[in-house]
Amino acid sequence: VIYFVQIYANTNMRLKLPITCFILEIILIILFGVLVEYDEETDAKKWHHSNHSQYDNDFYYRYPSFQDVHVMIFIGFGFLMTFLQRYGFSSVGFNFLIAAFALQWATLMQGFFHGMHGGKIHVGVESMINADFCTGSVLISFGAVLGKTSPVQLLVMAVFEVTLFAVNEFILLSILGTKDAGGSMTIHTFGAYFGLMVTRVLYRPNLDKSKHKNSSVYHSDLFAMIGTLYLWMFWPSFNSAITAHGDDQHRTALNTYYSLAACTLSTYAMSALTAHDGKLDMVHIQNAALAGGVAAGTAGEMMLTPFGSMIVGFLAGIISVLGYKYLSPILESKLKIQDTCGIHNLHGMPGVMGAIVGAVTASLATIEIYGNGMEEVFPDVADNKRTASYQGAIQAISLAVTLGFALVGGLLVGFIMKLPIFGAPSDASCFEDSIYWEVSSKKLLDTSKLCICPQPKKHCNYTVGKSRGPVDHCEDRRVRKARGD
Amino acid sequence: VIYFVQIYANTNMRLKLPITCFILEIILIILFGVLVEYDEETDAKKWHHSNHSQYDNDFYYRYPSFQDVHVMIFIGFGFLMTFLQRYGFSSVGFNFLIAAFALQWATLMQGFFHGMHGGKIHVGVESMINADFCTGSVLISFGAVLGKTSPVQLLVMAVFEVTLFAVNEFILLSILGTKDAGGSMTIHTFGAYFGLMVTRVLYRPNLDKSKHKNSSVYHSDLFAMIGTLYLWMFWPSFNSAITAHGDDQHRTALNTYYSLAACTLSTYAMSALTAHDGKLDMVHIQNAALAGGVAAGTAGEMMLTPFGSMIVGFLAGIISVLGYKYLSPILESKLKIQDTCGIHNLHGMPGVMGAIVGAVTASLATIEIYGNGMEEVFPDVADNKRTASYQGAIQAISLAVTLGFALVGGLLVGFIMKLPIFGAPSDASCFEDSIYWEVSSKKLLDTSKLCICPQPKKHCNYTVGKSRGPVDHCEDRRVRKARGD
Amino acid sequence: VIYFVQIYANTNMRLKLPITCFILEIILIILFGVLVEYDEETDAKKWHHSNHSQYDNDFYYRYPSFQDVHVMIFIGFGFLMTFLQRYGFSSVGFNFLIAAFALQWATLMQGFFHGMHGGKIHVGVESMINADFCTGSVLISFGAVLGKTSPVQLLVMAVFEVTLFAVNEFILLSILGTKDAGGSMTIHTFGAYFGLMVTRVLYRPNLDKSKHKNSSVYHSDLFAMIGTLYLWMFWPSFNSAITAHGDDQHRTALNTYYSLAACTLSTYAMSALTAHDGKLDMVHIQNAALAGGVAAGTAGEMMLTPFGSMIVGFLAGIISVLGYKYLSPILESKLKIQDTCGIHNLHGMPGVMGAIVGAVTASLATIEIYGNGMEEVFPDVADNKRTASYQGAIQAISLAVTLGFALVGGLLVGFIMKLPIFGAPSDASCFEDSIYWEVSSKKLLDTSKLCICPQPKKHCNYTVGKSRGPVDHCEDRRVRKARGD
Repeated sequence: VIYFVQIYANTNMRLKLPITCFILEIILIILFGVLVEYDEETDAKKWHHSNHSQYDNDFYYRYPSFQDVHVMIFIGFGFLMTFLQRYGFSSVGFNFLIAAFALQWATLMQGFFHGMHGGKIHVGVESMINADFCTGSVLISFGAVLGKTSPVQLLVMAVFEVTLFAVNEFILLSILGTKDAGGSMTIHTFGAYFGLMVTRVLYRPNLDKSKHKNSSVYHSDLFAMIGTLYLWMFWPSFNSAITAHGDDQHRTALNTYYSLAACTLSTYAMSALTAHDGKLDMVHIQNAALAGGVAAGTAGEMMLTPFGSMIVGFLAGIISVLGYKYLSPILESKLKIQDTCGIHNLHGMPGVMGAIVGAVTASLATIEIYGNGMEEVFPDVADNKRTASYQGAIQAISLAVTLGFALVGGLLVGFIMKLPIFGAPSDASCFEDSIYWEVSSKKLLDTSKLCICPQPKKHCNYTVGKSRGPVDHCEDRRVRKARGD
Repeated sequence: VIYFVQIYANTNMRLKLPITCFILEIILIILFGVLVEYDEETDAKKWHHSNHSQYDNDFYYRYPSFQDVHVMIFIGFGFLMTFLQRYGFSSVGFNFLIAAFALQWATLMQGFFHGMHGGKIHVGVESMINADFCTGSVLISFGAVLGKTSPVQLLVMAVFEVTLFAVNEFILLSILGTKDAGGSMTIHTFGAYFGLMVTRVLYRPNLDKSKHKNSSVYHSDLFAMIGTLYLWMFWPSFNSAITAHGDDQHRTALNTYYSLAACTLSTYAMSALTAHDGKLDMVHIQNAALAGGVAAGTAGEMMLTPFGSMIVGFLAGIISVLGYKYLSPILESKLKIQDTCGIHNLHGMPGVMGAIVGAVTASLATIEIYGNGMEEVFPDVADNKRTASYQGAIQAISLAVTLGFALVGGLLVGFIMKLPIFGAPSDASCFEDSIYWEVSSKKLLDTSKLCICPQPKKHCNYTVGKSRGPVDHCEDRRVRKARGD
Repeated sequence: VIYFVQIYANTNMRLKLPITCFILEIILIILFGVLVEYDEETDAKKWHHSNHSQYDNDFYYRYPSFQDVHVMIFIGFGFLMTFLQRYGFSSVGFNFLIAAFALQWATLMQGFFHGMHGGKIHVGVESMINADFCTGSVLISFGAVLGKTSPVQLLVMAVFEVTLFAVNEFILLSILGTKDAGGSMTIHTFGAYFGLMVTRVLYRPNLDKSKHKNSSVYHSDLFAMIGTLYLWMFWPSFNSAITAHGDDQHRTALNTYYSLAACTLSTYAMSALTAHDGKLDMVHIQNAALAGGVAAGTAGEMMLTPFGSMIVGFLAGIISVLGYKYLSPILESKLKIQDTCGIHNLHGMPGVMGAIVGAVTASLATIEIYGNGMEEVFPDVADNKRTASYQGAIQAISLAVTLGFALVGGLLVGFIMKLPIFGAPSDASCFEDSIYWEVSSKKLLDTSKLCICPQPKKHCNYTVGKSRGPVDHCEDRRVRKARGD
C-alpha cells in the first residue's frame, strides 16, 4: 500500500495512470459481463420475435440525434477547451479519456437506477444518449478545474460524479416526475455547481505562478471556435434527443434553434458593450453564445413558443456575458473559486434560469394549449394525477434538490481529489501540456520570447529555407555596425 | 439623432454594435410574438389532433439534412473564410453573428411571402432549412466584402438582402413555378451578384494599404480546409434538403455527390496547369472544388443522371479555376470589383451555369423518363399546365429575374452600406482582426518580422524554456565576434 | 511517347497531374455514361411505378450513416494525417483528390462485380457507402506512403488498389459468403497490408535526409486530433452503415461504441506506461484509440455482446500501442518498411484481430442466441446451407485470401508506382508541401530556426506592430554592449 501511495504522490504518470485506467476498465468489463444485455431492439432474437416494421426500431428515431450529441461531447467540449495556449493536448485529450470512461460507467449507473429488467441492464440507442448526457455533466465540471488537475484526479472525479449524477437524475425523473429532457438541471446545473465546489476545495492561492499560461493565443482561439460552433449547431439535437417521438422532438429542436439564435445577438451586443474599448472578447463569443441552449434545456420540449424561446435565449446571453465580465473575478477573489472556463456563466446561471423557465412554463400548461399532446409532455397532468401548478412546483423543488446534490457532492469529491496521491500538478506547472505529454520544445513555441527582425523588409529579409546567404549578410551588417565599420 | 450619427461614424463598436444588435433582436422577438406559431407538426395539440404514425412528422425526413446544412452555414462558410492570416476571428465570428440574425429574419420574410396560414407564419423543420438557405445567400455576399466592412454594415446588408432574397424567391418558386431546390439561382447567383455589386459600390482605391494582410499563412489555410471539406461533404444534403420525399431526395443527393467528385478532379488538374510552376494553389482547392455543388443546385433533383452530373461538375471546376486565375484580376483592375473570396468564381459563374443546366434539363423532361415521378419534379408539366419546353423557358427567365434583383438590389444596398455611419474600417485596417476583437499583440504573431538564428543547429540551439544558458552563450559568441575576439 | 515520359519523369506536376486527372475523369465520365443508371430508389419512373411508403426508400435508413462515413473519409482520414509539420496541405489535399477519384472508380468496379442489373450498374445510397468504404481502403494505404509519393503516384495506386479491392470483396462477400460489414478484412486488413507492401517496394534507404520534417509541431497535432475524433465518433456509423435494417444496424453501432470506449482507456494506459518518462504520446492517442473500431469491424453486427466488444477494444488498444512503440521501429530497420502513419498498428494488426474475432464469433452462433435474426446475420446458417463452424472457417479463410490479395497486389502495384515516370519526390523533399503547393516562405515558419530574445521581458519587449522603437532600443543595447559601451 505504501508503495502505491508513493507511486501516486508523484506527478509522474508512468504507473498511476496505467494502473488507474486498467483497474477501471477491467471492473467495467466485468460488470458489463455480469449485468448488461441487449435490449429488445438490439438483440437479434428478441427483435425478430415479433412482427413489426424496421422503422419501429428506435435506432431510426434517435441515432442521428445521438451522433450529434456524440460530436458535442468529444469535439464540442474537447475543442471548446483548447483555447489555452499550452494546454491543447490536455484539453482535447483528457476530455477524450474522461468521456470514454464516463460513458461506460454512466451506462452502468443509469442502468442500475432506471434501466434494470429482470436483474439486467438493457442497452440501446437511448442508453447511449443518456450515457453521453451524463458524460457531458462531468465535462462541464472538468471545465472548472481545467489545467489544474491530473488525469488521475479527473478519473476519480468522474467515478463519483457519474454516480451522484445518476442518483440525482433518478430522484428527479423517476421519483419526482420532473421533466428535464435537455438537462438544464440534471446536466448543466448539476455539472456546474459540482465543478465549482470541486475547484473551491482545490483552491490554489499561488495560481498566479502559471497565470501567463492561463490565456489564449491566436490559433488556439480559432480551435476553440470549432468547439463552440459544434455545440451551438447541435444543441437542438441535444435537447431533443430523448424527448417523445413526433411533435416533441420536432418542437424541442425548433425552440432550441431560436433560443440560440437570439442568444448569439445578445452575446455580441453585451460583449462589445462591456469589453475593453468596444472590442469583442473571444471568451464571450465562445461561451456565452451557447447559454441559450442551456437555458432552453428544460422548457424546450414544452409549448414554450418561438417567442418565448427567443426571450429566454436573449436573456441567457446577457446574463452569461455579465457573469464573465463582473461575477467571475468576484468569485475568484472573494469566494476563492477559480473557474478556468467560466462554467458558472455558461452552465451554472443559465442552467438555473432554464430550470426556473421550465417550472414557470410547466405551471402554465393547459389542455387548451397541449391537447392530447399533454400525455407526452406532462403525463401526470394529463392523467389528472397532478395539476400543472403542482408540476411547476415539482420542477422548482427539483432545482433545489439538484443544487443540493451538486454542492454537497462536489464538496466531498473535492476533498477526495485533494488527497495527495493523485499526482496533482504544482502551481507553476498548471496550464502546461508538457508535464503530461511528450512535447518537443520546438512544439511549444513561446512567442513572447521571439526576436523581431530590426529592419524586416529592407536589409534583413530572412526567409525560411534561405538561412545561409541573407543571414550572414545581415549579421555582417549588424556586427559591422557594432564594430563601427 | 446627431448623437447617434456621431456614435455610428466612429469605427469603434462599443455603442453602435450593441444598439444595432439589441434593436434588431427586440424587433425580431416582437414580430415573432405577433406573427409566428408552431405548424401542424411541432404543435402538441395539432399534431395529436389526428391519428398518424410518428414518422409522418416531417422531422424524420428532413432533420438530418437540416443539421448538415446547419454545419455548412456555420462551420462551412465560417471556416472557409478563415484563410486570411489576421482575420480569422472576424471571419468565423461575424459569420456566426450575421447567420444567427439572418436565420431569424429570414423566417419572418420567407414566412410572410409563402408560409402564412390565417395571418400566422408557421414554423418547423422546413422553415428552418429555408431560413438557413437564405442565410447562406447572405454569407456568400459576405465573402465579397470580407475584411472591408464593419459588423454593423454586415447586419445592415443582411436586413436588406434577406428581404430581397425572399421577394425573388417568392417570384421564382411561387409565381413562376421555377424549380430550384438547391438554389443555383435563388441562393448562389443571387448571393454572388448581390455581393459583387455591394463590393463594387464600396470600392476602395487604396486597398493596397492592407494588401500584405490580404493573404493566408500556413495554418490559416488548414483552418480554411475544414470549411471547404464540410461544404463539400454536406452539399448532397444541401441540394436534397427540401426536395420531395423518396426518390427525389435520394436522387438529388446522388447527383450532387458525383458532380462534386468530378469537379474535384478538374479543379486539381486546372490548378496545377495554371498556377505558378506546376504547383497547386490552395485558393483553387478551397473554392473551385465546390463549384460542382453549386452547378448541380437546380438540376440535381431532375433526372440529370450521374453521367450528366459528372459533366456538369467537371466543367464547373474548370470554369471556376479559370475565373480565379484570369477573371478575378480583371474584375478588380477593370471593373473595380474587389472580391475578397472570389465568390464570382465559386458562386457566380457556377450558379449561372447551374441555372442554364437546369433550364436545359427541364426542357428535356418527358413522361418516358420521369413516369409518375413527373408530378413531384415538374407538377405543372405533369398536370399538362405547361410543356417541358415552357418549363425550361421559365427556368431561363428566372435566371434573368434573379440577376436583375441581385444587381439592382446590391447596388442600392451598397449605397446604404456606404453611408458613413456604420463604422467602416479605414483602408489600412482592412483584413485586421484587432480593430474589432481583443487580440493581444502576442496573439497575432507577424512571422515576417521574426529573426532566424544565424547558425541554427550548431552554435545557437535556442530552445524554448531554456532561454538563459544558450542565449547568453550565443549572444556572447556573436558579440564576441563583433568585438573581434 | 518519349515526350510524355520526359514530362512524367520530372517532379514538376504542371503537365502530368493535369493530364492524369483529365484522362482519368474523362474515362470515368464515359464509363458512367455507358454503364451507370439510377436504381429503383433514385429513378423517378421506377420508384413511382409501384405503391409504397416513402420511408421504404433506403435513403432514410442509410443516408445519415452515409454522411457520417463521408466525414470519416474526408475529414477523418484527411486531418488525421495533418500531424506532419510541413505536409498539412498534401495530407488533407491529396486525401481529398484521391478520395474524389477513388469513389467514382469504386462505383464502377464494385458495380461491375456485384451491382450489375441487365448490363447496367445501379447506384444509390448503398453504392455510395460501398464506394466510400473502398476509398477508405486506399486512404489507409496512403498512410503508409504519406510524404513520399507524388499525387500522380497516388492516383496510379488508387486505380489498381480499387480494382483489387473490388475483386477481393467480390470473392469474400459474393462467392464465399463471408460476413464483414465493417470491413475488418476487406477494408482494413486489405488496405494496410497492400500499403505496407507498396511502401516496402518504394523503400528509401536515405530517407533520413528529410527526417527532421517527419514529425509534428504543436498545432499540427491538434489538427490531427480533429481527424482522430471524427473517426472515433462516427465509427459506429461506419460499421453499421450497410448491415441489415433494424436490430442489426442498432446492435452494430452499439458494439462499436463500447469497443471504442474500452480501447481508449487501454490506449491511454499503454501510452503512459511505454512512452518516455510516463508522458502520453500524441501518436498513440491519435491512432491506437481507434483500433477498437477496426477490431469490431467484422463481429460488430454479430451477437458479440457489449462485454465481448469491450474485451475486443481493450485488447486492440494494447496491441496497437505496443505496435507503435516496439514493432514499427523493427519493421523499418529489419524489413525496410517505412510506414509513415503506422497503419500496421492501426489497421493491420487490429484488422487481423477483427477477422479472427469475427471467425470465432461466427463459429459460436446458435439459433438459441440469434433466433429468427439468424436469417439476417448468417443467412446460410439460417437456411441450413452451412453450419456455424463452417461459417467460422470461411471467415478465417477469407482473412487468408485478403492477406494474399493485399500482399501480392501491393507488391505488383508498388513496382508500377516505382517506375520513374510519376514524379516521385527526392529523398530530401519528402514530407514537404512546398514541392507540390504554392507556399510562401512566410507560410512555412521553421520554428527551429527562430531566435529567442535574449532578455525577453526586461530590455527587449518586442511586440508585433511596434517594431520601430523597442527594436532600435534593443539593438542599440546589444550593439552597444558589443562595442564595449
